[in-house]
Amino acid sequence: MTQLLKVQNFTVSADGYGAGDGQSLRRPFGHADPAVLMSWALATAGFPGRTAPGGSRGLDDHLLRDFHHGIGAEIMGRNKFSPHRGPWEDHRWRGWWGDEPPFHTPVLVLTHHPRPSFTLADTTFHFVQGPPADVLEQARAAAGGKDVRLGGGAQTIRAFLDADLVDTLHVVVAPLQLGSGSRLWTSADELDDRFHHDVVPSPSGVVHHLLWRR
Amino acid sequence: MTQLLKVQNFTVSADGYGAGDGQSLRRPFGHADPAVLMSWALATAGFPGRTAPGGSRGLDDHLLRDFHHGIGAEIMGRNKFSPHRGPWEDHRWRGWWGDEPPFHTPVLVLTHHPRPSFTLADTTFHFVQGPPADVLEQARAAAGGKDVRLGGGAQTIRAFLDADLVDTLHVVVAPLQLGSGSRLWTSADELDDRFHHDVVPSPSGVVHHLLWRR
Repeated sequence: MTQLLKVQNFTVSADGYGAGDGQSLRRPFGHADPAVLMSWALATAGFPGRTAPGGSRGLDDHLLRDFHHGIGAEIMGRNKFSPHRGPWEDHRWRGWWGDEPPFHTPVLVLTHHPRPSFTLADTTFHFVQGPPADVLEQARAAAGGKDVRLGGGAQTIRAFLDADLVDTLHVVVAPLQLGSGSRLWTSADELDDRFHHDVVPSPSGVVHHLLWRR
Repeated sequence: MTQLLKVQNFTVSADGYGAGDGQSLRRPFGHADPAVLMSWALATAGFPGRTAPGGSRGLDDHLLRDFHHGIGAEIMGRNKFSPHRGPWEDHRWRGWWGDEPPFHTPVLVLTHHPRPSFTLADTTFHFVQGPPADVLEQARAAAGGKDVRLGGGAQTIRAFLDADLVDTLHVVVAPLQLGSGSRLWTSADELDDRFHHDVVPSPSGVVHHLLWRR
């Protein structure tokens, strides 16, 4: 069985940015408002952080729920873990994901700066460096035969796309402009030479792009 | 946690028929050609009967793969199990689903005629009767806390809809006319008084209807 490398639920603005400029501890998405960018996901019954009952069970929910299915490990860029740059100075800071991170698998955080692995609930964070192909090999070994999620951000996805390592992408284009920040693409059609591409407008206003390797 | 009753991947013609007239051992869908009706599913990478590699990984595949997620039991009408009518005469006939049925859970087959339960691989077929609410209660007990799939056919789905027991439906409308047979609806909008309703055309030519209880 092939272990796929999959991008899931990655949300960008209409102009292709996954996050804005000026990331900080209080602004994980920089000048972008995550409540607006991610509003499609927040409205679904399946959103992991949902506390109240209710929520939609239509297209957005079906796609959102695919997040965990068959996934054994995630690769994420450092900026998805932390706003800090350079050597790790405070090991008490254990990422944006709380005491019960939503991953439930090993997570490989890309960084040039070494740091010991640690575990929060059923998620273990490892800090790794190396070319994308080497990191993917580590992630596959950690995934126990299952697929690997490529969690973002945009620069991380670009690096694995440039190395031609990505098998499927689910990218959600939200109806807002960001103007600057961390950019995945200028147009969703950029990858059509290498990927099949379903364009699926959702009744919620976002457009789901589902791409798989030709 | 609520245990939902869910219709998944149920495919009908543009005029609303889930199967044609004249079901027989050789024609499980009567005059309807299952290879045409189900061609959207057969083309996906996730189709359970797929033997060759390849297949699409776009919208149709995402929705098709939801089949097993969180499901602990299925309820099906007798005609989805067998073309026979009346008392069970040949217990060697163990259904259309082969030695490794694709359900992998208990399956409750609706019939007025008693028959002992039996197991094929990891699927156990039970033969039950009673009003829909009672059958659903049995299925929930068998599902071990998970959701219950309502497998069809159209008459079975109608019976549970009429008793207001269905929580979500994923119905796929294929671009062909059948003219007669077992009918789910005359129009997908019939249920809009009771259900939210996402209408999602697929690039493959089918239209996915995703409905969830208001």
